[in-house]
Amino acid sequence: MKRVGIVTSGGDAPGMNAAIRGLVRLSALEGFEVLGFERGWEGLLTNETSHLGPRSVGGILNVGGTILHTTRSPRFKQQNNLKHAARILAQNRIDCLFVIGGNGSFEGALELSRHTDVQLIGLPASIDNDVYGTDETIGFDTAVNTAVTEIDKIRDTALSHERAFIVEVMGRTRGFLALTVGLNVGAEVILVPEVKTPMKQIVRVLTENAEKGKKSSIIVAAEGVGDTRKLAAEIEKSEKIEVRLTVLGYVQRGGSPTARSRTLAFTFAEKAVDLLSQNSGNRIVVLKDGEVTSVSLEETCSHRKRLDLSLLKLAERLST
Amino acid sequence: MKRVGIVTSGGDAPGMNAAIRGLVRLSALEGFEVLGFERGWEGLLTNETSHLGPRSVGGILNVGGTILHTTRSPRFKQQNNLKHAARILAQNRIDCLFVIGGNGSFEGALELSRHTDVQLIGLPASIDNDVYGTDETIGFDTAVNTAVTEIDKIRDTALSHERAFIVEVMGRTRGFLALTVGLNVGAEVILVPEVKTPMKQIVRVLTENAEKGKKSSIIVAAEGVGDTRKLAAEIEKSEKIEVRLTVLGYVQRGGSPTARSRTLAFTFAEKAVDLLSQNSGNRIVVLKDGEVTSVSLEETCSHRKRLDLSLLKLAERLST
Amino acid sequence: MKRVGIVTSGGDAPGMNAAIRGLVRLSALEGFEVLGFERGWEGLLTNETSHLGPRSVGGILNVGGTILHTTRSPRFKQQNNLKHAARILAQNRIDCLFVIGGNGSFEGALELSRHTDVQLIGLPASIDNDVYGTDETIGFDTAVNTAVTEIDKIRDTALSHERAFIVEVMGRTRGFLALTVGLNVGAEVILVPEVKTPMKQIVRVLTENAEKGKKSSIIVAAEGVGDTRKLAAEIEKSEKIEVRLTVLGYVQRGGSPTARSRTLAFTFAEKAVDLLSQNSGNRIVVLKDGEVTSVSLEETCSHRKRLDLSLLKLAERLST
Amino acid sequence: MKRVGIVTSGGDAPGMNAAIRGLVRLSALEGFEVLGFERGWEGLLTNETSHLGPRSVGGILNVGGTILHTTRSPRFKQQNNLKHAARILAQNRIDCLFVIGGNGSFEGALELSRHTDVQLIGLPASIDNDVYGTDETIGFDTAVNTAVTEIDKIRDTALSHERAFIVEVMGRTRGFLALTVGLNVGAEVILVPEVKTPMKQIVRVLTENAEKGKKSSIIVAAEGVGDTRKLAAEIEKSEKIEVRLTVLGYVQRGGSPTARSRTLAFTFAEKAVDLLSQNSGNRIVVLKDGEVTSVSLEETCSHRKRLDLSLLKLAERLST
Repeated sequence: MKRVGIVTSGGDAPGMNAAIRGLVRLSALEGFEVLGFERGWEGLLTNETSHLGPRSVGGILNVGGTILHTTRSPRFKQQNNLKHAARILAQNRIDCLFVIGGNGSFEGALELSRHTDVQLIGLPASIDNDVYGTDETIGFDTAVNTAVTEIDKIRDTALSHERAFIVEVMGRTRGFLALTVGLNVGAEVILVPEVKTPMKQIVRVLTENAEKGKKSSIIVAAEGVGDTRKLAAEIEKSEKIEVRLTVLGYVQRGGSPTARSRTLAFTFAEKAVDLLSQNSGNRIVVLKDGEVTSVSLEETCSHRKRLDLSLLKLAERLST
Repeated sequence: MKRVGIVTSGGDAPGMNAAIRGLVRLSALEGFEVLGFERGWEGLLTNETSHLGPRSVGGILNVGGTILHTTRSPRFKQQNNLKHAARILAQNRIDCLFVIGGNGSFEGALELSRHTDVQLIGLPASIDNDVYGTDETIGFDTAVNTAVTEIDKIRDTALSHERAFIVEVMGRTRGFLALTVGLNVGAEVILVPEVKTPMKQIVRVLTENAEKGKKSSIIVAAEGVGDTRKLAAEIEKSEKIEVRLTVLGYVQRGGSPTARSRTLAFTFAEKAVDLLSQNSGNRIVVLKDGEVTSVSLEETCSHRKRLDLSLLKLAERLST
Repeated sequence: MKRVGIVTSGGDAPGMNAAIRGLVRLSALEGFEVLGFERGWEGLLTNETSHLGPRSVGGILNVGGTILHTTRSPRFKQQNNLKHAARILAQNRIDCLFVIGGNGSFEGALELSRHTDVQLIGLPASIDNDVYGTDETIGFDTAVNTAVTEIDKIRDTALSHERAFIVEVMGRTRGFLALTVGLNVGAEVILVPEVKTPMKQIVRVLTENAEKGKKSSIIVAAEGVGDTRKLAAEIEKSEKIEVRLTVLGYVQRGGSPTARSRTLAFTFAEKAVDLLSQNSGNRIVVLKDGEVTSVSLEETCSHRKRLDLSLLKLAERLST
Repeated sequence: MKRVGIVTSGGDAPGMNAAIRGLVRLSALEGFEVLGFERGWEGLLTNETSHLGPRSVGGILNVGGTILHTTRSPRFKQQNNLKHAARILAQNRIDCLFVIGGNGSFEGALELSRHTDVQLIGLPASIDNDVYGTDETIGFDTAVNTAVTEIDKIRDTALSHERAFIVEVMGRTRGFLALTVGLNVGAEVILVPEVKTPMKQIVRVLTENAEKGKKSSIIVAAEGVGDTRKLAAEIEKSEKIEVRLTVLGYVQRGGSPTARSRTLAFTFAEKAVDLLSQNSGNRIVVLKDGEVTSVSLEETCSHRKRLDLSLLKLAERLST
């Protein structure tokens, strides 16, 4: 009988629990035994584990966060720690470790793969949607909808006060969330780290909007574009527009996963257990052109996912 | 200068307004004039129209329903009415008519195409997701999430009372909604019109669940599977299980569209205006394998979309 | 050291868990030991109990339903069962039993009080808001908001199709929910069991609305007013109005409690523990004119709560 | 025939539109003519008005913000401007002006009352709930629920990461929102401007929580308690606890009003029109001990509303 481990690592994302539910139940049906490692890579270093059966994952599919807890563990990539983790896996007689997380988690898995023969299979879960190889990550659709719902509310007050609002969404280095959110709230301006937008252009759009008779303007900005407080102040100075700033913050990580984030979690789990059965390791499961398939850990870790700038152009044209 | 018309027809779906916004604004950028026909095909027979400009579609992207109103119009397909509609289009000097709707709307469009040279371009919008050629319709993701949120609530009371619940979702002939919803709420049984499920099997699953220690069971049923009241009564008789029925009803058609339904509306609108610019008509825009493309009205009307039964199997395994 | 019991009985209501949290933690602070009885009065007959401490009620305040489970137990009121229950309480050395529930639960408690000296203290929790003596019950505000949110969605589709909708909400004998919901969705007609509304009047309102230019009409009906299917059919016959029916069903019982339902649960729990400390029993906690106080079980069980018909009149005038 | 004016002033609050709907329709039933002034007191200075009839307030009861727009107008209280506003009212032959807003708006109304005989009637609408004389303001319940829903989501991620979170809610000078929100999310610490909480005490609570086995801690802080960034940094320094900060921001002002905020708007409007009919002016409508009544502008402007500190104590005991 095979023994499999599950770890959730890095920032949490809605749908991680649904993925755990999928992995545990589908593994159980194959007759595998399942061990959960606690608090991300840390649990692999401290050997904190719990046995997971079909009943222990009941009632969690609609709950945000992760029952296995998670943490960022920079010390994990040190050679001695990687070797120690490999020993812990061996000691627990683990055949395969499912890693639910984002880029950082997969880099950790790739490093670990150099010290162990245990099959490592990744399931991309991240509100940033920045994992190369997959069109979407578990949790992204939820974070988008959370932010969209919030900004729809801010639009109420923006319209009532005839003001401009800057809304900062998560995304320290990438603009996937900001772009998708901006498109879907009808933002007048979308600022992403991938594109340098001159202040002049922002001010021009806001001015033109006012001239067109638009009562309010929404600027959606990824946190990675710089200090949004300063941006707000600068716009107020350039134009006689009142500007207000809201930083959405950690709300975007939580909440019950959307149907799409759940479906992704389930179909990713199915594919992951398939890969395990085929003894195919050191890969991550991905969604590519509507199909669930996989790419190697090597490949996802050595490429940078491209932001679709044509959507930025479309958003601009739609907010005419 | 080209003149384009827009009509929303058949059952309404969340995101129709987002599609109207997209069509109007992108058409305006091309320099086209836009006319909205009121109340579906009826407006084409009675020549009820309004001019639509970029400002007339402000503030509608997050509102359910359709500002153009809609209706079912069985009389439209009569030869004399089709000819009359063709005359109304000519009279309004319409070059292209965008039809936002489902199968019934596209059948109407196909009939109409035999009486006019006006370019007809369809945008699939339906909570049923049953349009051949497209992986998803505008509004489907919203209806799924609405139903999932409701059933998550019903699960609370099901758990408290240790009962079984049947939840009937929309879908008179097809099970796309029921299947996706059932998968995502972790339903113990999913009943779709495409698959005949013997009463014995339903009762067996419920009995086994109770034995496994599950405190509640959820059965998601498409309305097309038959009388759910009778089903509830029969299960109660076969087993000593208390069964409660909820018919979700028209709630599923309304509500603010999800981000995904909005994105679909916008990208469909973009493709539709592209087709118009290329003088390519009698087609519907579709999402196929993650890409927005198109198929002919002929093709979509002559095929039946296949339900992915492997998802049914997956849902079953996940509710172990 | 005192020993207290908690039981949730009858239909579940959102906020019951918040009340349990309040009772357990505040009792613990007083140094009392807490025992939960499972599945309503049934647990008192079968002696199914669990110990509850501050940590066992962590993370439940925002979850619908009741962790103690509930059931309707008609057999409880039989003399032999009441005596048996009294013995179970004695056997567990219970000094005080907190009963979270509605009218049926308090009638049970009153009966039980004739066979035991255990202090019985009720906390009104019911989506029906029909408990005499209190202006509001735990869960009522949540059920109202759930129904209002749903009907806001139905209004979208009603407006798009220019139809009338009947929405049936819970309330077999009383109209508190229907009235409050109807007022807050701007219903054109509100039907409650307490008032006989002639068909003629309903039809007249709908006709007048159409003449005034209203695009849709919403009729909110308590389930106790009779067969809403028949009503829909009759209206369709009387008038050339398309009528659609939605029965909201069990969705109204579930969901995360609103802030108000939580606050009520907490302040009721505080008062209940106060009563216990004062050795004041056979009472229920109530909200009266903005203040949390109490009335005797005798009093609440022997009176019928009055529906405020002036609100019905106000709703009518507001939907002008 | 009487002529009445309506103005919404100061910060917007969910339910202002419901109040406008109530005032317009109930006034129309009395045969009064209704004029809306645009953009708060500014519209009174610039004479920007629109006629409002029963149909012009259709479909707005569930929409956040205010269709009359609002603004803060510090210049309004200058003597010459007050006189000018009085002239504008006379010029429009206004008999009564309904002022929907908060403390600032009522101070403006009081000043204005010294220059005009027009009846001034206030309807308290503010997410801050800081208007003296009323137990609740229109919009407060909505803002509370919005914040509670958000923080429930943050709790997901707090639990997954085993971190402490500071959540800053609105309230520059008063703690009504922070206190009610904190109580209802089960916050471990609540910081309000009315109470000085030493850093030592905050750290002690967090430390004790960790020792008790609590996996996360939530600190809810009103914006008026000082720099929350600094607070987060200080806590991190004092204890080895990871602390994250989220500022909820303008989300709290928007969104569809809850049932309670709508009911308050309707019953306040009813009372306001009653006062008008009784020629009773220079008063604001209030909710006092469960009853809708009124107090004078003089009284509300000369007192400071008391925060119920016993609720703070209760919240503390409940988070044991």
